[in-house]
This record gives sequence, C-alpha cells and structure tokens, in this order.
Amino acid sequence: MSRRTESADPAPGGKLRIPRRKLEDFCGCIFAALGIPPVEAEDSAKILVAADARGIPSHGVAHLSRYIRGIEAGLIKGGISPTVLRETPISRVLDAGGAMGMSLSRAAMDWVIDAARKHGVGLCSIRNSNHFGIAGYYTEMAARADMIGMAFSNTAALGVPTNARNAFFGTNPIAFAAPAENGALFSLDMATTTVTRGRIEIAEREGRKIPPGWAVGVDGKVTTDPASLLEDMLYLRGGGLLPLGGEGTALGGYKGYGLAVMVDILCALTSGGIFGAAVRDSETTSARVCHFFLALKLDLFRDPAEFKRDLSALLNALSALPAAAGANRVYYAGLKSRETEAECERLGVPVAPEVWADLEANARRLGVTV
Amino acid sequence: MSRRTESADPAPGGKLRIPRRKLEDFCGCIFAALGIPPVEAEDSAKILVAADARGIPSHGVAHLSRYIRGIEAGLIKGGISPTVLRETPISRVLDAGGAMGMSLSRAAMDWVIDAARKHGVGLCSIRNSNHFGIAGYYTEMAARADMIGMAFSNTAALGVPTNARNAFFGTNPIAFAAPAENGALFSLDMATTTVTRGRIEIAEREGRKIPPGWAVGVDGKVTTDPASLLEDMLYLRGGGLLPLGGEGTALGGYKGYGLAVMVDILCALTSGGIFGAAVRDSETTSARVCHFFLALKLDLFRDPAEFKRDLSALLNALSALPAAAGANRVYYAGLKSRETEAECERLGVPVAPEVWADLEANARRLGVTV
Repeated sequence: MSRRTESADPAPGGKLRIPRRKLEDFCGCIFAALGIPPVEAEDSAKILVAADARGIPSHGVAHLSRYIRGIEAGLIKGGISPTVLRETPISRVLDAGGAMGMSLSRAAMDWVIDAARKHGVGLCSIRNSNHFGIAGYYTEMAARADMIGMAFSNTAALGVPTNARNAFFGTNPIAFAAPAENGALFSLDMATTTVTRGRIEIAEREGRKIPPGWAVGVDGKVTTDPASLLEDMLYLRGGGLLPLGGEGTALGGYKGYGLAVMVDILCALTSGGIFGAAVRDSETTSARVCHFFLALKLDLFRDPAEFKRDLSALLNALSALPAAAGANRVYYAGLKSRETEAECERLGVPVAPEVWADLEANARRLGVTV
Repeated sequence: MSRRTESADPAPGGKLRIPRRKLEDFCGCIFAALGIPPVEAEDSAKILVAADARGIPSHGVAHLSRYIRGIEAGLIKGGISPTVLRETPISRVLDAGGAMGMSLSRAAMDWVIDAARKHGVGLCSIRNSNHFGIAGYYTEMAARADMIGMAFSNTAALGVPTNARNAFFGTNPIAFAAPAENGALFSLDMATTTVTRGRIEIAEREGRKIPPGWAVGVDGKVTTDPASLLEDMLYLRGGGLLPLGGEGTALGGYKGYGLAVMVDILCALTSGGIFGAAVRDSETTSARVCHFFLALKLDLFRDPAEFKRDLSALLNALSALPAAAGANRVYYAGLKSRETEAECERLGVPVAPEVWADLEANARRLGVTV
C-alpha cells in the first residue's frame, strides 16, 4: 500500500490525494475480500469514492469501516437477490433482504431508467435495505439518460419534529437531478434536517458550540452544546437534530419536518418497511432503511434538446447573478460538486490521513495487496 | 348582502363567520357576473373558500379583488380550452392560454387521477396559467382517491438565491398528500421560501421588525426592516425573500434555494413556460405561472388498506409525542388545517371585516344579489 500513499499529492487540510481509479480498486478489493460478489463490490466502491470525489466525504470511504463491520456481522449481505413484492411495467416494490444498499440501488435505478425509457415513467420502492451512500449518484444516472431523476431514503431517527423533544425521523435525504447542455446538471442532494450528525461530531471534536437552529436537547429547546447532545442522542434520552428551518415555526421548521415525513412515507409506507422512530442503526443492528427512486423521461414533456437548452439558460443565469456583499459567487445545486469532481480527476481524491491509515489496516488484516 | 353579515358569528380577531356554502355561492356569483362559465366560477369559489376554511387566509377570498381585476383586464380568462402540447396515456403537457388557474388545475388533477386509476401513475405539466390558490387542494383530491398526490407551482420571482442579491425564484410551493384511515391525511403544503410576502406586509402594517432569516436587502445581506424591503422589491432594486433555511449556508439556506429551483424545473422547464426572474405579476401583467401535478396509485405498492393502517400509526405516533418545554402539542402536516376546517363547518368561515366590505362593494358594482 505504501506506493499508493507515496504517489499522493497533498490536498487542503493535510489530506492525501489518491487517484480515483486506484481508490475505487482498493475499496473494491476490500469488499471482495469480505466475500462480496464482484459487481456489488465494484458498485459499492465506486459510489463511496464518488462521494469523496464530489466533496461529500461524510458519505465516502471514511465509512468503509462501518460497512466492513456490518458485513462481518452478517447485517449487510452480499449476493442477495431482492424479493419482488409487486411489479407493473413501470413500477417495482422490493424487499432488499439486507442487501448492500449501494449496489442494490444502482441496479434498482437501472431498472427504473429502463422502465422510463419504455414507458416514460419508472419507479421503485425498496424496504429492508442498508445505507445507499449519496442519493445524488442515482438521480444523476437518470439525468445522464435524458430523464429527471429523484431519490429518497429514510435513515436512522435522529431528527426531532417541530414542538417535540424526541427524535422521530432521519436526516431523510431528497435528491433531484435534471440534465442541461454539455453534460451540465442541476443536482440537488440534501438532508431534510438542518445538518447531519457528522457536523455535530466535528463541532464537538473541535471544542466549538453549535449554532441555534441545528439541534434541541432533551427538553426540546435549542441546545448549543454538542457533547451533551451527542450523549443524549446516543442513549436515546431525547433531543436531536432540527429539521430544515430550525426550532419552532418562526423560520419554517415545520416545513423541513414535513419534508422528512414525506420522505418516510415515500420510502417506507409504500414498501411496507420500518419508519419513524423504529429506524435505528448501531454497531450490532443494521438500519434496514427504505429507498424510493423515480425517473421521468424528458420526451414525455418536450424535445429533450429544448429542455436542456432552457435548463442551461436557467443555470447560467443563476451562476451569473451578482453576489451578495461579502460573498464570492452564486452557485446552483450540483455546480460545486461538479467542479470538485473535475479537480479530483486531475489531482486525485482527498482522503484524510487517519481514514487512509484505517483503510490500510483493514486491507492488511484482510490480506488485500492491491 | 346584509342578511348574510348579520347572521355571521364573530370569530377570533374580530372576523366575521360566514357559512361555507354561502361564501362559496357569493364568490361563485361574482365570478359568474364577470362572465366566467359556471363550472369555472364554482371551482374557483370553492378553492378560494377552502383556503380560508383551512386556516390559510393568505390564499383565500381576500384575493378575490385581484382575480376580479385580472379578469376585467382580460389577463385571467374564462372559457379557455387549454392546448394539449404532448400527451401519453399517463401524461399531459398543457398550454393554459391564461385560463383561470384554479379550475384548470382541478380539471388537470381529475385527468391525472383518472390516468393513475388506469395505469398507476398520472402526471400533468402546465404553462401559461394563473394563480391556482392552495396547492394542497389538488394533492388532497388524489389522496381521497387512494393515491399519493403531489403539486407544484412556480410563482412571481421574490426569492433570492443563496449568496445572491436579486430575486430569481418564487415562493414556489411543494404540496404532498397521502391518505390514512378514517379520512385522515398527511398533507404538506409549503412555500420553499421561509415566509411569503404577505408575512412581510403584515409586519410592516403592524410596525414590527422582521426576524433575521426572512429576507435580504439590496446588498444581499439580512434586513429586518419590512418597509424598505417592500419598496426595494416593488421597484426591483434588489433584495427579497430568503429560501427555507435562511441566509447563507450555516442553517441550510441552499437547500430551500435548491427546492425552489427544483419546483421551477418541474413546472416550467417541462412545460416550456417562463421561469426564474421572468415570472412577475403586477396590476397589469398576469403571472403566466406554470404547474406540475403527479398522482401515484397506492395499489402500485401495497394493499391500500395496509398503507393507510401504517400511515395512521405514523401520524398517531407523531401527534402523541410529548411536547417540548413551552409547546402545547405536536402536529403533523395537515392536522391543524383539518381541525380548523371542521370548526369552520360548524361555525362558518372567518372573513376579515375589511375583506367582507370589499367583497360586498364588488358585488354591488357587479349587480350580484345572492
């Protein structure tokens, strides 16, 4: 492994730069060494590395250890064929049976895209799955196929409803992508909570308070202390993340809360999976999360070339807007990720040294010698 | 008209209470006196009054004068048959030709529901329409037909993208509804800006400052002064409403911004309508807004009775959650509206005296004597 480390350029924040294909191969070999079949190992590695390459390290290879533990504990399973619970030419409902969430989701989105290619619309609802990485990976598959793509997932309950004091929904992401000209995309991929737990953990490590609007404590009122919050969340004493829009109703917190429940309904209520406070993961139980995918073929609506021309006009107008005082520039959803990804293709994908050391230790333990 | 006024019970805030059917008839007769055909007049009256009955007076009969002016100016047209631009068994794209937005949208959702009944999915994208009232009216039509319903609309550009200083998107609502047991619904209907312009106007009338997180001034930085903000917005000097999540990125403002653009893409990019900063209404130009409707039949996924049983369990669990310190109770999206609507069925629909006086003046002028 040392050769790879030596070849890496330094990245901001002391991170190493690993060539994208090499990092994918490395992660793929670790999954393969755990007995995951080749296609699933490759999918999972690609989707994890895509998160790092797009500037979303919270969903990237830093989580490989968690997947390794899940696989070794038998909670995340390779080689599973999902059970088809209900099917029409445009729709499928699957029980994933604890499969690898990322490879399963890639295959599900392939099915959805194929259905939409034939019939204009395709959708798939899935229960009993595992973490699927970045939701935007799947929506962008649809966008690359001249479709509007949407993806949703419920996740472990860490978010507290407006006016409540206990967690009842996850960070429940919403992803939406649509294609413009020359490969440009509008690609939104957002948690419906203000922030994810990872941001609280970073604040705690750095000894900083968290801003009002991120979380509430056991009494359901705003807290700024990340350490007590994380402990209260861990032991299920109450408190948790606030929905997008923050505490109460003054800044629209009930909207983020509503969107989070909408995601739970789309994913878990349609598939018959677990929802609300029942969704919990830990070192020994898998999340058994649920997903929902949708694709709409552009030519249902218009000539795709006209759609893409107009979307380019929209996106170009947004990024050309004059910036607010003190701000550098105006982005649209997906632009920053696209720029980061292009940089990573040139320079390699940034990986924190401690994450890299952890990957190397796992590789040694599993006898991986790529 | 005096008989009606005398029979009204007083409501909180000095409002009159008008029996729902009478208020519907009254508004319907005003539309009819303006030459709007009967079905369109009735639809429009019902949908406006539904907003007041559900506790959303910002979208109710207080706007009747605006519709009257639009109809009299020839900008909102009765008796229009929309042009079908593209059609499949599950989808339609319409040019509304400046039709009454509410009746058009009711008819479009009927078509969508019928398509979904036959094929599992139905959707309709519409350009060149007018304000359609409350988005939740249409999603609840789908929910009552054992479907998941979604509705979106772009609106006049009043919202400022993250890091920008000029308005580029509307309050662009997202509505989503799904049925539970015994007529209960989860029904989310939300602007993707933190608040709508109406809330700024109320603060200005009451001489109050607005909280940080609602709006930015001409420099793109937070403002708390509603008077200068409203003037700057009116004369297009810059500034405007903040997306859900507020200023910058600290509390997730880019998420609300992303959702608003998603709505613009779904509505205007799919239909070939106007989008972004081009969407503007005034006393003399109609908004020419675009809408998008989607319905998914529950039995695509599961036995609808099982879905509704699980959704009731979810909603009951939410409303049974212990409240935060200082809060009364936990609501889910649609619960408060349902309770308000039941109260209005018993007591009548609250109408502000000045709104009522305005309606009466219009009725007299148009010779309406219901």
